[in-house]
Amino acid sequence: MEKIPVGILGATGTVGQKFLVLLENHPFFAVTELVASPRSAGKPYAQVCAWKQSTPIPERIARLVVKSTEEKLRSPVLLSSLDSSVAGPVEEAYANRGHCIISNSTSHRMDADVPIIIPEINHQHLEIIKSQRYSGAIVTNANCSTMFLSMALAPIYREFGIEAVQVTTLQAISGAGYPGVPSLDILGNVIPFIGGEEQKMETETQKILGTLEANRIVEASIKISAQCNRVPVYDGHMETVSLKLKSRASVEEVRQVMRDFKGLPQELRLPSAPERPLVLFDEEDRPQPARDVWLNRGMSTLVGRVRECSVLDIKMVILGHNTIRGAAGAAILNAETMLSKGLIEGPKPEHMELVLESRGD
Amino acid sequence: MEKIPVGILGATGTVGQKFLVLLENHPFFAVTELVASPRSAGKPYAQVCAWKQSTPIPERIARLVVKSTEEKLRSPVLLSSLDSSVAGPVEEAYANRGHCIISNSTSHRMDADVPIIIPEINHQHLEIIKSQRYSGAIVTNANCSTMFLSMALAPIYREFGIEAVQVTTLQAISGAGYPGVPSLDILGNVIPFIGGEEQKMETETQKILGTLEANRIVEASIKISAQCNRVPVYDGHMETVSLKLKSRASVEEVRQVMRDFKGLPQELRLPSAPERPLVLFDEEDRPQPARDVWLNRGMSTLVGRVRECSVLDIKMVILGHNTIRGAAGAAILNAETMLSKGLIEGPKPEHMELVLESRGD
Amino acid sequence: MEKIPVGILGATGTVGQKFLVLLENHPFFAVTELVASPRSAGKPYAQVCAWKQSTPIPERIARLVVKSTEEKLRSPVLLSSLDSSVAGPVEEAYANRGHCIISNSTSHRMDADVPIIIPEINHQHLEIIKSQRYSGAIVTNANCSTMFLSMALAPIYREFGIEAVQVTTLQAISGAGYPGVPSLDILGNVIPFIGGEEQKMETETQKILGTLEANRIVEASIKISAQCNRVPVYDGHMETVSLKLKSRASVEEVRQVMRDFKGLPQELRLPSAPERPLVLFDEEDRPQPARDVWLNRGMSTLVGRVRECSVLDIKMVILGHNTIRGAAGAAILNAETMLSKGLIEGPKPEHMELVLESRGD
Amino acid sequence: MEKIPVGILGATGTVGQKFLVLLENHPFFAVTELVASPRSAGKPYAQVCAWKQSTPIPERIARLVVKSTEEKLRSPVLLSSLDSSVAGPVEEAYANRGHCIISNSTSHRMDADVPIIIPEINHQHLEIIKSQRYSGAIVTNANCSTMFLSMALAPIYREFGIEAVQVTTLQAISGAGYPGVPSLDILGNVIPFIGGEEQKMETETQKILGTLEANRIVEASIKISAQCNRVPVYDGHMETVSLKLKSRASVEEVRQVMRDFKGLPQELRLPSAPERPLVLFDEEDRPQPARDVWLNRGMSTLVGRVRECSVLDIKMVILGHNTIRGAAGAAILNAETMLSKGLIEGPKPEHMELVLESRGD
Repeated sequence: MEKIPVGILGATGTVGQKFLVLLENHPFFAVTELVASPRSAGKPYAQVCAWKQSTPIPERIARLVVKSTEEKLRSPVLLSSLDSSVAGPVEEAYANRGHCIISNSTSHRMDADVPIIIPEINHQHLEIIKSQRYSGAIVTNANCSTMFLSMALAPIYREFGIEAVQVTTLQAISGAGYPGVPSLDILGNVIPFIGGEEQKMETETQKILGTLEANRIVEASIKISAQCNRVPVYDGHMETVSLKLKSRASVEEVRQVMRDFKGLPQELRLPSAPERPLVLFDEEDRPQPARDVWLNRGMSTLVGRVRECSVLDIKMVILGHNTIRGAAGAAILNAETMLSKGLIEGPKPEHMELVLESRGD
Repeated sequence: MEKIPVGILGATGTVGQKFLVLLENHPFFAVTELVASPRSAGKPYAQVCAWKQSTPIPERIARLVVKSTEEKLRSPVLLSSLDSSVAGPVEEAYANRGHCIISNSTSHRMDADVPIIIPEINHQHLEIIKSQRYSGAIVTNANCSTMFLSMALAPIYREFGIEAVQVTTLQAISGAGYPGVPSLDILGNVIPFIGGEEQKMETETQKILGTLEANRIVEASIKISAQCNRVPVYDGHMETVSLKLKSRASVEEVRQVMRDFKGLPQELRLPSAPERPLVLFDEEDRPQPARDVWLNRGMSTLVGRVRECSVLDIKMVILGHNTIRGAAGAAILNAETMLSKGLIEGPKPEHMELVLESRGD
Repeated sequence: MEKIPVGILGATGTVGQKFLVLLENHPFFAVTELVASPRSAGKPYAQVCAWKQSTPIPERIARLVVKSTEEKLRSPVLLSSLDSSVAGPVEEAYANRGHCIISNSTSHRMDADVPIIIPEINHQHLEIIKSQRYSGAIVTNANCSTMFLSMALAPIYREFGIEAVQVTTLQAISGAGYPGVPSLDILGNVIPFIGGEEQKMETETQKILGTLEANRIVEASIKISAQCNRVPVYDGHMETVSLKLKSRASVEEVRQVMRDFKGLPQELRLPSAPERPLVLFDEEDRPQPARDVWLNRGMSTLVGRVRECSVLDIKMVILGHNTIRGAAGAAILNAETMLSKGLIEGPKPEHMELVLESRGD
Repeated sequence: MEKIPVGILGATGTVGQKFLVLLENHPFFAVTELVASPRSAGKPYAQVCAWKQSTPIPERIARLVVKSTEEKLRSPVLLSSLDSSVAGPVEEAYANRGHCIISNSTSHRMDADVPIIIPEINHQHLEIIKSQRYSGAIVTNANCSTMFLSMALAPIYREFGIEAVQVTTLQAISGAGYPGVPSLDILGNVIPFIGGEEQKMETETQKILGTLEANRIVEASIKISAQCNRVPVYDGHMETVSLKLKSRASVEEVRQVMRDFKGLPQELRLPSAPERPLVLFDEEDRPQPARDVWLNRGMSTLVGRVRECSVLDIKMVILGHNTIRGAAGAAILNAETMLSKGLIEGPKPEHMELVLESRGD
């Protein structure tokens, strides 16, 4: 199968690097263009990138000459992890030139005509890109902490309704990029503040869990209150979550809908899809970031300690890999989903049509 | 002023060691007896104690021969940090022999005739020791996480009433004693479970904030839901707290009653009393354990980010030193309070009578 | 190919667990018996083991009933990671019953008739087990820190001779087993002492680099001085090494013999053999434990910063995975080597004979 | 006693902040001018400084308006912790205007007419500032790692002579300033490289231990080989040291000369002088950075595990507080020493003259 050429916007950053690691040997996509700041442009990638991954730079990638964000690109699909300080106009410019931008950046997430896609939950929202003013398209994934929260809420919201959510996060340092958090600030410490994060969790979740009506997204109206903290953990955002249901459900019923949760990526057996989007633990002291975050290659949301809450109804702890399912892996799964639905042109495995037909989505 | 002889039950443990550090040069009390497990009994303290403090063992203490929990003791006051596996019967036995036990152990906290004293909040509860079946007495302080929560809630509860509290803790490793948490379990990790801790926070707080009626404590009836986590921090329990008030109050009103909060220890100027029980931060990223936990010698509860909560009413982050105000310092402040109120016999500064009279407590 | 049944002595410990992870799907060996302390005996493995690996207990293993160290065993090969407090007599007893013990324990390493095998260096030393008093045999691998030091020294020693070695270690917490080092002792700290470790490095290395003469090992006589430290790193022992050569060599010559170093496991393409026993880094700040320790599945010794030393001749930094190549992986590679040389009975791949013949070892 | 006005060059950096903490309530000096980069100039200190100390900014200091490195200053004494990228010319310019620069920066340390002063070792070297081309003067202190090494070597060097030194450092993150080392690089990791550090240790030590002959410093000629590593420790540089003596000495003799070591600051009872420059530990696992680094207010060098070395003669582990005795505290002690010797004009305690006379230095 011929692979679809893909460009990486923000290729030298930590999420950019994760894109390259995850796309090495990808069955559908091949990285052919790397885009970074003007400072890096014109030089071989290996020379300008402070590579921080535990595997070496893929050889072919190392020699690619980095392009600047002002250059024309050939790749129809652009995965973006541009810094939010520049992502807005750059992504728009490429979308106007006909590229399909699949972005991990914040900039366009809350645009009315841009969906925040978690394909297990709301791949139907992809519909609205048809109304975008771009000749190409912009599709985003959720903020990392929002990703795991939305994933945990989705099956419960569908089955029982949710009125309110209290969430406290314990977020890993890799979520802040590189150089990111100074060691003097976080070694043996907790920082009870992450700029903009609480607001993202409180707003993005509403859009993700919203419904598509007359080609626009009607947001959910859950009361959400977030408190975000940075902890000295390398990878893995943990969250304690309490929620108030609309209709009564027992702890076991909640566990059951979470355990049974599956979505389009699982049915299509997309290459980056975890077998289960939610994995439930029975142990009283799990999940733990250092021990569990790589389960299912970092693509599942891990859930533990589902139990009654004496203030709201149900409480639990959740965990996800912030730079995989919370960033690079999320965007790649979005690309795979778009390919399967014909929103990206290119060859795709036959079984996909059958699945899509049988679902009638 | 002659000092009151004090014995330490559980003298080799980490809280026991903190007692010794804090009582070195104490104006009212002098440590004269050390009690530990039979294994240590009969030997000089320095020989049996795995001393983990940053100052050396006080010289006089180092040479004291450790007594066993079965020996008779001379000291009228016994500060106890016995392991909860043995504290129950040992503390009772000494109370029956006429000693005044001021305990940091869990065992008797929820006994109907034993108060959990935080003197800024409920020194009046000391009244109930008169009804104890012991010739001596048993008085306890709160569990460490409960301490900071109760302290933060107290002025708000008094002024506005509180219906419900959601709290997530991020607790330091020193809270688990020594050897405590294995480094393999916590380095770069979070453990989302601490045995018994959530239940302690949910029940002890009710008793502490309760009222004394007809010589018994009528518990408060706040809905409290706790989620407790261990994080790789040395000292300092941080807690994110959300609460639902009984009567409306603005964020600024809540801040004001917290800022103004003072109690008996402050008025009496007790040696271990912090100038302010609650210290409010204005910075958006404080308090932080590694940076702030030693403020006011570890005796204040630090409060930051007081703001509106979209699910309940008000949310904030709090922090306290778990082995100081959350353990050894709390018990010592209780001893000072009891002395000032005549519940421990001994010489005391004159100004205390005047303060007590003028308060009419 | 039918697999050779293997028993694990000390199966519940951290190295025991690593054995099980590494032997899952091993081409030559299949774990059939698990042996642990009497406390665990008679119960299914999953019930008695505090499993600390990042992958779940292999299902078949989870159900195996643990045997006690006093029971008779059927497996001809026993991999041992018994605690050194019990390993001595238990390993002897099984060796007397005809089992081949391949041990990671200290107890018998310095016995005159027991070799310490690092097959890239001294597989010829296996010869001496023929003179053992056991009907079976005991073969050991090196202490973890010694492993990486010996591996780095071996090609230099062979080519240029070595007179003296200064080594300072920075050792990971996983080297101390579980529960091992209390977090209160090591979080944000360094402990400049590891019991017995310096002496092991100074003596075992002599035996490993020794020569086989008249069926006994004549130890090398290098002056070795070690200083061992524990640092807050999860996996990976780092060592700064300075050495005095017998005959002059340039930095580049030393790098070259290290880079070219290969041994029997590489030629035989043994399943656990790394492609290269030594991997040299060119970057000035590598290798680093958190970043590099899993290179070649944790089976290589990583070398960086080879440069001149103004006191001795050459200095460098080395790093290895202490629980893989420094423990479980080392023993398994020894087992594979023994199988290839006919010292363990069982089926083996054909190409091995050819290699062995051509080497004439 | 009227205090001598002091300016701080590089006041917003981490060492600059430590100057301010240590000089708060200093008996001889009062901070009156703060100098920083042009970006900060003209604004109140509290507004431009990312204050990272555990005590708040002294109130008077908070309001001081920061000056730029190009402004004229009134304070006769300037303590400098300017970044080495700018320190060179700035310090020279102020020295040319008559100021006495007491610098923690690298820039001028190896100038032939600038001494590196550790007053316990070589206060006599201050003599050479008389030959400086400046109307004022420049005096430096050692690099942090060099400081503790030189202090440990000095009494041994004097008494027995030293031929060679092997040293491996384990250095704290606070040594790299702020933001300094990214947490992603050091959490649970070791970095075996610190730019320029090894060379500083190998050269500065020679100058510090050198002798003053005909008004110039004749360097010592010890062979020194350093290997420098960054470890995840907050404060405290630890070093494993091995040394070859010129004349034989037993371990106990070496311990004795270290234990007895005292210098001018101790005799003068200078305010920042530790009672003992070297503190010896008897415990086999001490000193440890997290536990011991604040001993004697961070001004002593701590020594443990002095024992025989089988390659050189003696080995040991040493530890010091890198931002106190290794930086800010060192410069302040130099200022106190210069005042006592009349090299800074100002009032000084009477007992100093007597001590100086009696020493005949």
